[in-house]
Amino acid sequence: MPKPAWSQEESRRHNLGDLLRQVHVAGPLSRSALAERMGLNRSTIMGLTAELTAAGLVREELPGETGRAGRPSLVVRAESDRVYVLAFDVRVDRLVAARVGLGGKILDRRETVRQRAGADLDDVVGVLAEFGREMYRRSDGLCVGAGAAYCGMIRPGDGMVRFGPNMGWVDQAFGAELGQRLGLGLPVPVGNEAHLGALAEHVRGVGAGVQNLVYLHGDVGVGGGIIVGGKLLDGDGGYGCEVGHMIVNPYEGRPCGCGSRGCLEAEVGEQALLEMAGRSAELVGRDGISAVVDAAANGDEAAAEALRRIGDWLGIGVANLVNLFNPGMVIFGGMLREVYRGSAAQVHSRVAANVLMISREKLQLRTAALGYDSTLAGAAELAFAELLASPLEVLARLESA
Amino acid sequence: MPKPAWSQEESRRHNLGDLLRQVHVAGPLSRSALAERMGLNRSTIMGLTAELTAAGLVREELPGETGRAGRPSLVVRAESDRVYVLAFDVRVDRLVAARVGLGGKILDRRETVRQRAGADLDDVVGVLAEFGREMYRRSDGLCVGAGAAYCGMIRPGDGMVRFGPNMGWVDQAFGAELGQRLGLGLPVPVGNEAHLGALAEHVRGVGAGVQNLVYLHGDVGVGGGIIVGGKLLDGDGGYGCEVGHMIVNPYEGRPCGCGSRGCLEAEVGEQALLEMAGRSAELVGRDGISAVVDAAANGDEAAAEALRRIGDWLGIGVANLVNLFNPGMVIFGGMLREVYRGSAAQVHSRVAANVLMISREKLQLRTAALGYDSTLAGAAELAFAELLASPLEVLARLESA
Repeated sequence: MPKPAWSQEESRRHNLGDLLRQVHVAGPLSRSALAERMGLNRSTIMGLTAELTAAGLVREELPGETGRAGRPSLVVRAESDRVYVLAFDVRVDRLVAARVGLGGKILDRRETVRQRAGADLDDVVGVLAEFGREMYRRSDGLCVGAGAAYCGMIRPGDGMVRFGPNMGWVDQAFGAELGQRLGLGLPVPVGNEAHLGALAEHVRGVGAGVQNLVYLHGDVGVGGGIIVGGKLLDGDGGYGCEVGHMIVNPYEGRPCGCGSRGCLEAEVGEQALLEMAGRSAELVGRDGISAVVDAAANGDEAAAEALRRIGDWLGIGVANLVNLFNPGMVIFGGMLREVYRGSAAQVHSRVAANVLMISREKLQLRTAALGYDSTLAGAAELAFAELLASPLEVLARLESA
Repeated sequence: MPKPAWSQEESRRHNLGDLLRQVHVAGPLSRSALAERMGLNRSTIMGLTAELTAAGLVREELPGETGRAGRPSLVVRAESDRVYVLAFDVRVDRLVAARVGLGGKILDRRETVRQRAGADLDDVVGVLAEFGREMYRRSDGLCVGAGAAYCGMIRPGDGMVRFGPNMGWVDQAFGAELGQRLGLGLPVPVGNEAHLGALAEHVRGVGAGVQNLVYLHGDVGVGGGIIVGGKLLDGDGGYGCEVGHMIVNPYEGRPCGCGSRGCLEAEVGEQALLEMAGRSAELVGRDGISAVVDAAANGDEAAAEALRRIGDWLGIGVANLVNLFNPGMVIFGGMLREVYRGSAAQVHSRVAANVLMISREKLQLRTAALGYDSTLAGAAELAFAELLASPLEVLARLESA
């Protein structure tokens, strides 16, 4: 229910955040474009811009300075090189950290491949915190937040990893620990990697403007992030969207890491594909998947047959999700981008056969525009969330800290 | 995004609707209870109550008049016997119409069992319109709206049945036609039966107060209504929640009416149960299902085995939905109430084995509190929606008509 009325102060804070979000998401915008998008008059926009400029969050400049052609009316642009967040991404087989500027540009990054099993909280947090601190030291900008993506089930609010099967984590205080080890006085909110990938693709990827979408993320297993009416489906405890554990092959399915059998991730995950294609365990992860897809394209019949079978299961999963969610778009992210590249015909065939005709009238199937970095980009969005809600209050708090 | 500010007029309209909704959903409430629920002071409540009383929508009385014990402070109650809607429900094997009073009480009803196949729009609308007109003539109350539930896919906005497989309907203008034949000058909004069943159980059934729930509705096939964050999941076109066409048995499954194979509704629907239990086709529908469940309870081994197998498939479907939606509750409605009664052990066993532990920590499995009438009750809620949004405006329009 909307509030009956906003105070002037609430309106101003809301409008400041909204303007900052506009240029954060859409890039440089003229005052008149901002006025139209925000439903405000130009003098209000001018006042808001002045406040954000004084705070060092945006600047106004001639579009000519950006190298673009056009009328010389000023544009408002985010201070992308100066104002940034630290984003972290714990994937099954690698750790990534980045310094991401307001506006979403990656300014700096660190990445390391890691052993898949046996990494404990201390190791992971140690590596990430060192990456973060190093990038922080090397920058003279203003760090306004931090955020992390993790390949497991996360409790909302405190960044607790409730269940991270690929790393054997149960109830590990990842967010709190990373915040402490970073030592910058910043909290580190954490989200499930596929949830964040979905958000990033929805905010600034191929799903921009699509209010209902299903994002499928391959990272050894299969995760999901589902946007319903413009909002992430989280469910009662924040643990929704577990598409990887939708059972599609209950009686003859492959065993899954969750203890079940025939889950979607068991049937279409990395291990299933590599085994069916007769690959040794030497080339795994994204390189292993790419090798199979390339081999199939070059006439390797075992690889092609493996992709056909995997694609059929993937198509069943997609068909089920489309019948359930009636989305405008399904997005394949992470390693599933590659899998989809190699099995699109099977996926389309299942969608045509198994989705109710009316539910697929306007359906689009796409790959993630942000590539392997959709999850990292989502972590950055999480980190920017507070600044975009109350820009001046966050700056005041940072200054007083 | 909330509106920056409401005019006094908007606030008043909102508050009038909110007060009416409170007593519509919760029953008679004292002014102080209303003040607390609505976050308003008692003099505002008094003013709103006076307006609604003058309009004939509520009345104030001593709770003693209702036969209840307690302090003699006035309660506000809906004029349930005077203000009503016409609700219609097109189920696969019967047509139901009811006069439903403000507050949700069924004041009058008509029902007829019909041949399952071959009913055309004209026949169905003819029967329902006659029921509606007859109930309207026999009442001296005020009819404030109409609404209908239909066992198929409905286009939001105009009540067009896009696809009603059980009756062979494609693109039939059901809502418009029923409105015209009723001849009362009222539009007839239409919703999918399971969507409306979910809404009714969420508003005034076992799911009251549960913000994330999955409602499964058995009516020969299987429909679904899913509440996400307090709102019905509709998807891009309004066709979401098609749980019945989630494929659970892709390679060896039973053929489904939609053209696929191994859909949940093919595996757990009425036909599957009756066939597995070795029943003749003579006793079908809810009586057929009940007979199998009763026989199993009385030692009929074929019936018991059929229920075990059906229950296992139903459990797989439920497990998948819980992993996807992390709901607080799953509700079995329509014929699935009976099926669940006879197969709860199998369903629970699948949930325990196949739902991620964290996603079932607080899960409840329940049967629909409104019984077979949850869909009818949902149609009534659809019919009341406009009155509850703008009470006085709707009355003014009715008077000028």
